[in-house]
Amino acid sequence: MAFSTSFTASQSLAGRAIVGASPDTSNRLAIPSCLSFNSIKTSARQHLQHRVARSHRVRPLRAMAMEAAVEALEGTTETTPVALVEKSINTIRFLAIDAVEKANSGHPGLPMGCAPMGHILYDEVMRYNPKNPYWFNRDRFVLSAGHGCMLLYALLHLAGYDSVKEEDLKSFRQWGSKTPGHPENFETPGVEVTTGPLGQGIANAVGLALAEKHLAARFNKSDSEIVDHYKYVIVGDGCQMEGVSNEACSLAGHWGLGKLIAFYDDNHISIDGDTEIAFTEDVITRFEALGWHTIWVKNGNQGYNEIRAAIKEAKAVKDRPTLIKVTTTIGFGSPNKANSYSVHGSALGAKEVDATRQNLAWPFELFHVPDDVKSHWSRHIFEGASLEADWNFKFAEYEKKYPEGAVELKKIMSGELPAGWEKALPTYTPESPADATRNLSQQCLNALAKVLPGFLGGSADLASSNMTLLKMFGNFQSTTPEERNLRFGVREHGMGAICNGIVSHSPGLIPYCATFFVFTDYMRAAIRISALSEGGVIYVMTHDSIGLGEDGPTHQPIEHLISFRAMPNILMFRPADGNETAGAYKVAVENRKRPSILALSRQKLPHLPGTSIEGVEKGGYIISDNSSSNKPDLILIGTGSELEIAAKAADELRKQGKTVRVVSLVSWELFDKQSDKYKESVFPSAVTARVSIEAGATLGWEKFVGSKGKAIGIDQFGASAPADKIYKEFGLTVENIIATANSL
Amino acid sequence: MAFSTSFTASQSLAGRAIVGASPDTSNRLAIPSCLSFNSIKTSARQHLQHRVARSHRVRPLRAMAMEAAVEALEGTTETTPVALVEKSINTIRFLAIDAVEKANSGHPGLPMGCAPMGHILYDEVMRYNPKNPYWFNRDRFVLSAGHGCMLLYALLHLAGYDSVKEEDLKSFRQWGSKTPGHPENFETPGVEVTTGPLGQGIANAVGLALAEKHLAARFNKSDSEIVDHYKYVIVGDGCQMEGVSNEACSLAGHWGLGKLIAFYDDNHISIDGDTEIAFTEDVITRFEALGWHTIWVKNGNQGYNEIRAAIKEAKAVKDRPTLIKVTTTIGFGSPNKANSYSVHGSALGAKEVDATRQNLAWPFELFHVPDDVKSHWSRHIFEGASLEADWNFKFAEYEKKYPEGAVELKKIMSGELPAGWEKALPTYTPESPADATRNLSQQCLNALAKVLPGFLGGSADLASSNMTLLKMFGNFQSTTPEERNLRFGVREHGMGAICNGIVSHSPGLIPYCATFFVFTDYMRAAIRISALSEGGVIYVMTHDSIGLGEDGPTHQPIEHLISFRAMPNILMFRPADGNETAGAYKVAVENRKRPSILALSRQKLPHLPGTSIEGVEKGGYIISDNSSSNKPDLILIGTGSELEIAAKAADELRKQGKTVRVVSLVSWELFDKQSDKYKESVFPSAVTARVSIEAGATLGWEKFVGSKGKAIGIDQFGASAPADKIYKEFGLTVENIIATANSL
Repeated sequence: MAFSTSFTASQSLAGRAIVGASPDTSNRLAIPSCLSFNSIKTSARQHLQHRVARSHRVRPLRAMAMEAAVEALEGTTETTPVALVEKSINTIRFLAIDAVEKANSGHPGLPMGCAPMGHILYDEVMRYNPKNPYWFNRDRFVLSAGHGCMLLYALLHLAGYDSVKEEDLKSFRQWGSKTPGHPENFETPGVEVTTGPLGQGIANAVGLALAEKHLAARFNKSDSEIVDHYKYVIVGDGCQMEGVSNEACSLAGHWGLGKLIAFYDDNHISIDGDTEIAFTEDVITRFEALGWHTIWVKNGNQGYNEIRAAIKEAKAVKDRPTLIKVTTTIGFGSPNKANSYSVHGSALGAKEVDATRQNLAWPFELFHVPDDVKSHWSRHIFEGASLEADWNFKFAEYEKKYPEGAVELKKIMSGELPAGWEKALPTYTPESPADATRNLSQQCLNALAKVLPGFLGGSADLASSNMTLLKMFGNFQSTTPEERNLRFGVREHGMGAICNGIVSHSPGLIPYCATFFVFTDYMRAAIRISALSEGGVIYVMTHDSIGLGEDGPTHQPIEHLISFRAMPNILMFRPADGNETAGAYKVAVENRKRPSILALSRQKLPHLPGTSIEGVEKGGYIISDNSSSNKPDLILIGTGSELEIAAKAADELRKQGKTVRVVSLVSWELFDKQSDKYKESVFPSAVTARVSIEAGATLGWEKFVGSKGKAIGIDQFGASAPADKIYKEFGLTVENIIATANSL
Repeated sequence: MAFSTSFTASQSLAGRAIVGASPDTSNRLAIPSCLSFNSIKTSARQHLQHRVARSHRVRPLRAMAMEAAVEALEGTTETTPVALVEKSINTIRFLAIDAVEKANSGHPGLPMGCAPMGHILYDEVMRYNPKNPYWFNRDRFVLSAGHGCMLLYALLHLAGYDSVKEEDLKSFRQWGSKTPGHPENFETPGVEVTTGPLGQGIANAVGLALAEKHLAARFNKSDSEIVDHYKYVIVGDGCQMEGVSNEACSLAGHWGLGKLIAFYDDNHISIDGDTEIAFTEDVITRFEALGWHTIWVKNGNQGYNEIRAAIKEAKAVKDRPTLIKVTTTIGFGSPNKANSYSVHGSALGAKEVDATRQNLAWPFELFHVPDDVKSHWSRHIFEGASLEADWNFKFAEYEKKYPEGAVELKKIMSGELPAGWEKALPTYTPESPADATRNLSQQCLNALAKVLPGFLGGSADLASSNMTLLKMFGNFQSTTPEERNLRFGVREHGMGAICNGIVSHSPGLIPYCATFFVFTDYMRAAIRISALSEGGVIYVMTHDSIGLGEDGPTHQPIEHLISFRAMPNILMFRPADGNETAGAYKVAVENRKRPSILALSRQKLPHLPGTSIEGVEKGGYIISDNSSSNKPDLILIGTGSELEIAAKAADELRKQGKTVRVVSLVSWELFDKQSDKYKESVFPSAVTARVSIEAGATLGWEKFVGSKGKAIGIDQFGASAPADKIYKEFGLTVENIIATANSL
């Protein structure tokens, strides 16, 4: 069977690399040259045949009993002796124990309790290719209880991922290691999403499952299920308590995400002790209320077949996500610390490590993986390559039959933007009718949806206010998952975290989400994860100031612009008109490893002379200047809806005979990246008479107005009244700019 | 019966006024001089007797049928003809319609749908005194779906609150009015908490209910139930979708808050349309899973007796909170817009208003309250005064029997701090053993708990990391509600919003709450409400920088300090040692109308020479200076854990012969409030060589270091490694300060 297709796994890797920007991206994506796909397929099959034969030879009686459950698990073609399963599970436990002990820092309790489900998932259930962590059709695993990351690192290590070698385990939680204190997708290939802040991971998994359901609906054909993978997640008590997880799980139930399977590590312990002190709700019933299928595995410590059977059952339920409550003992195996909070977040200590080694009959040295365990797991390299090769073959067939779909899907898999996509963005002239930037944003969103195959998104129940509907598409719903308008309900936090999952699924998926700018407060933890985990989510945030008017101070952002300008790896935009809105979208789409926030107006704004997409790309630029040299009498700086006020004030001041420059500072972060020469050309150091105007906190503006300039803004909460009245009362007026400028 | 007690209602009012700071506080607390309590009691009783007699005379047959249900409602001694009930309900509807129409802005849909439950609550069920909105033992009502505020304003108007007169209804959503676009407790007496951001209100109500249960357990005696009131709340679909409401409701169930009764306005419509598009979970079952009693009123539009019976049932369930799902029609009465999103957030329009007037047979002019409705509601002024007078009498009796309890409770009711309370705060010398400020914080918390009767709080499952346990108290639990350690579980957002409820309950309740500083991202919406609604919650935020070490960037705050410094009405503290921690608590406790955030270290810090409580009160102050005039060569500025580094660098630079001043800038907001003279004495404008050091974003520091100074900080995400290593790698070192200083 010849392996020939125009889209190979290595191209898939290259596709990822195109988008990648981390210094080590190319390195981490290297694929062993020995693994040409023909040879892999052959050798993997021989290997499997060999192992199946051997396991039939040596299989003990107990293993016979497991057969039914094991065979039920899709893709599992052999049984493993229970003694070896237990040895593997203990290997996971001791890798975690040893790494935490060496670092004298970390969380051994969860890996010790969850090792059985971890083993079964990575050894028996999941389909992945350790040598290509970015294979498109892999099953995804999310450790929502991210503090238990040594579980994940141990599993990646056993499975053969290059990112977690023995030396990486030994440098757990150390500077520059691949094994940081919580799972970080940008550090460790094989880690799908960045977790640790509780509740985020399960919501990310909902996003991953949404992405799969959407792509499957768009691209699968009756004769080719080209998109077909599961999302597994482990959530702890902490995740269950967080509101964001309830938000996301309510949506998962609503959307009927049948390929999402969540394991709830029910260990009854959180940091403050027994969950009885704060968490006595009936989780199973809550999930049933949310529309999930639920299963309870009562012996998660040793009931391997129960776990296997639960997974089988979960997979059989196609129309709903499944919660498998797995009752475990935190720190299982530790004779004195198991089932107590003391094993949650601290090293066991040498004495207790010894006691645990004795208790679990573990005679090996530190970080040891016994040969039979190593040998057992070694097949995943071959199996994984085989799985990917099979899929590549399938994709090649698909491509022949469905070339149009294949082109789109390849763009989504690779992240390659269609040539000339940016030409779809609208442009405007000062004669274009005045409009709110939220409306201009909707023009951009709809233009982009036509040219970007992976563009999808929606609002937290404010679509008609945020102006985010894609007119050419319907609603993504359980029965119409091919559509691209996402309806998040009033769940801002879940929305952001779900978008983090979507953007993590495939490089070419570009999710946007929307609410009022002030309600970024509800979703800030998710936005920060976008920034940290290098997920280019686009946040469409309308009603961006007191300009929203009557809704009043609960709805009026004040400190939000500065609070995001200070957040690392964010692009905070406040466009002033149509061209700037289009420019913000251009930069946002291009930045696939940096989330963008667009602060957009509710109120109408004119299209100003001098604004441009190119200007936005520089972050700050001159929109008008009546001076002949680079030394105007005065520089007025504005953003968003106040740029118009600055421009009007400049006109007045020019009539008074002054030379005045007007600068739009639409994105501070982009401006920061410009050369010193460019910065000096915009803000000549010799010109100290500078006035800024922005309907937000003045803190931070000292950076641009300097100690001799003045910042006009709002350092108190807003008010409920018509917008014009509030602007006037708060001094955001042409008159105030002129008076301030004249006072300098 | 002589009315004599050392604690009268008017003193209660005065107590509130002590704490109040708004310009109009004294005005809003005025009590009519005619209402001496003896006369109130007499006239109220006569009035009641008269009305009961009259209602028996005119009662129609249908009213007979209501009797059982109505009589069941505690405190209701008469029945009201159903025609009058409906007239009252329609009055509420049209007050809302007319106000929104006049403003051409607002949300008529909810008031039109919820008017029946609103009427029953305020006219038949709740115990309050309209002329003293701050009467301690009043029932509390929270409109969690705050956008429906015209419901609340209409009810307050009918009930006789001075804060909402006809002219206030007519200036709905206008500059300076008492009727802003969402309910604001600080603008409108009678409004208990500030709502609008969805889900906050129900969590506030949980806090109010917690406060009542706690105070009842501490102060009630077998012969005197001096604390005894209910909390009613209306939540909408939006509130139900928000994660914060699930967090808080899970705790309400856990804590068994039996006096919390929530009405779920199940109208099946949210802004994006039918809730079918995003919200199909089974809410009743979810609440049962959370440990609530649940009831479904299927005809919330006209099933008055069903609503009454549900409230009766809810009150009979003492050990659990109750959710009453009330199925209503949004915009009830509007023939063309009812049951659609178009009636949610826009004025009906003149044509539809006319149609609604016809449909509901409402012939009256705008803003009209029919005489019989007015007359019917008028009794609440007398009844309310009577209720308060009865309670005052009861309290006088209580005070005689239980003088110690009465003294404490009076402090809690009035907000008066015990004389000399601040002397309980610990002080330190440079010889005191080095310690983490989180530990020093715990010393302060425990010291304060001994002297402040209303001091209580806890952590979001990090008590042993945040160091927040009060050692002299046990855990507040359903069976031990008299205790003061609150166990919030991993529910930061719910925690903050619950504390907003606690602080709103009584002026002398001082709640604190805790998590890692980075997780303020989860609760930012609640913190902002603390600031906006003038609630002096104390936020104890530990692990305040990269200094937490190995947990890595998901746990390391960067932009958080500046993000709160920019938030209005917040006091953001970053104390450097023991004295500064004590100083921060002193200011925090004193500021009952301004929340405080304390950013505290995980790592040990020395007690620095020169730090002081008095210094903290100024926000920024000199801790050391070897110059003889007010013109040192260099000013080093630090906060928190970096102040030590600045002090060490100063020592080195002084050895090099420089004159160096070290400034602690522990609270920017407090420093901003100082005189120009004082500011110049700390930062002489002639000294431009300034270096700041803080383990956080540098944005904003330009304000203090100026254009010629330099800010040392972190403008990227942190890393997972031991803290010392990260400090070194990020250049937060003595060496870097020296090099930077020498470069100026």
